[in-house]
Amino acid sequence: MKITFDVDENNNIVHSKNRGMSLEAEITESNIFYRENNIALIYKKPTPIRIVKCSNSKITEAYFDEKSTTDFNGVYKGRYIDIEAKETNNETSFPLNNIEDNQIEHIENVIKNNGLAFLFVEFTSLERYFMLEGHKLIKFIKENNRKSIPLSFFIESSDEVERSLIPPLDYIKIIDKYIKNS
Amino acid sequence: MKITFDVDENNNIVHSKNRGMSLEAEITESNIFYRENNIALIYKKPTPIRIVKCSNSKITEAYFDEKSTTDFNGVYKGRYIDIEAKETNNETSFPLNNIEDNQIEHIENVIKNNGLAFLFVEFTSLERYFMLEGHKLIKFIKENNRKSIPLSFFIESSDEVERSLIPPLDYIKIIDKYIKNS
Repeated sequence: MKITFDVDENNNIVHSKNRGMSLEAEITESNIFYRENNIALIYKKPTPIRIVKCSNSKITEAYFDEKSTTDFNGVYKGRYIDIEAKETNNETSFPLNNIEDNQIEHIENVIKNNGLAFLFVEFTSLERYFMLEGHKLIKFIKENNRKSIPLSFFIESSDEVERSLIPPLDYIKIIDKYIKNS
Repeated sequence: MKITFDVDENNNIVHSKNRGMSLEAEITESNIFYRENNIALIYKKPTPIRIVKCSNSKITEAYFDEKSTTDFNGVYKGRYIDIEAKETNNETSFPLNNIEDNQIEHIENVIKNNGLAFLFVEFTSLERYFMLEGHKLIKFIKENNRKSIPLSFFIESSDEVERSLIPPLDYIKIIDKYIKNS
């Protein structure tokens, strides 16, 4: 396998978003790294689809099922992990209408069963990434009658994820903290 | 909601397979009961589908993705749970060609990450249900050069699940044992 890097004038590798990868793709690439190195087993959940017509292996009529839950789930150190990934172009806050009610409900259900749930947010224009733990997300929504979560809340109350090369978003070590506290 | 029961001559409720529910449907119904009672959160994984053509919300050409993993996953008491459900009409053994290589590989990956994986088998003509824990399944496959797992192995080395009314298969209590031992 060959990997091509962008380098700056000193031949230092540039970790640039210019590659144009979506947050979901970056998490998926990180998950492949975790899987291949037996660190964690986290998958993108397939999109739920309602199949109407199907001949042999070809589906000719189907619809997206509206009741999807979150983007990723899997196992890390025996614990159940659930992640919803969202990007925003907004530079000062994360608009809560990005998250559907049934996704919030799902995160609450994960928490009730002592699983570890996270909202993984990319502020794309800032190139900053945050993992907001589920309890904190639910608490914010219930205690604040706001339509968005300010960036300052992410800076103070969530965990920032630095971009790296391999894996692109090395988020798993953040989860250790929550395993110890639960 | 009304529920209709089959009763015998003494008006005792008959738990009959005649309702024709598949094993998958019975597990799903049990999972709804667990979810509504905050006992566990276990979902059927959506079937992975490769979408080729799609206009608005209507998918007009798609194919089943061959690399599916297992049937169910979720969280119970914080732990990651993974279940593959299989029915067999065979009365003396469970044919191993029912399980795909990538499903075995997935179960091994779950185990490596300290998750709890199970093969949930229904011997349909016997109306008997067994949950075989992942380590035992993998050990059997590696140590025996056999094309099937005999019923006697399930009776000796797995956990039998009794049918009940609500939930139809109350399998979750079996998992407690493996949580304690891991």
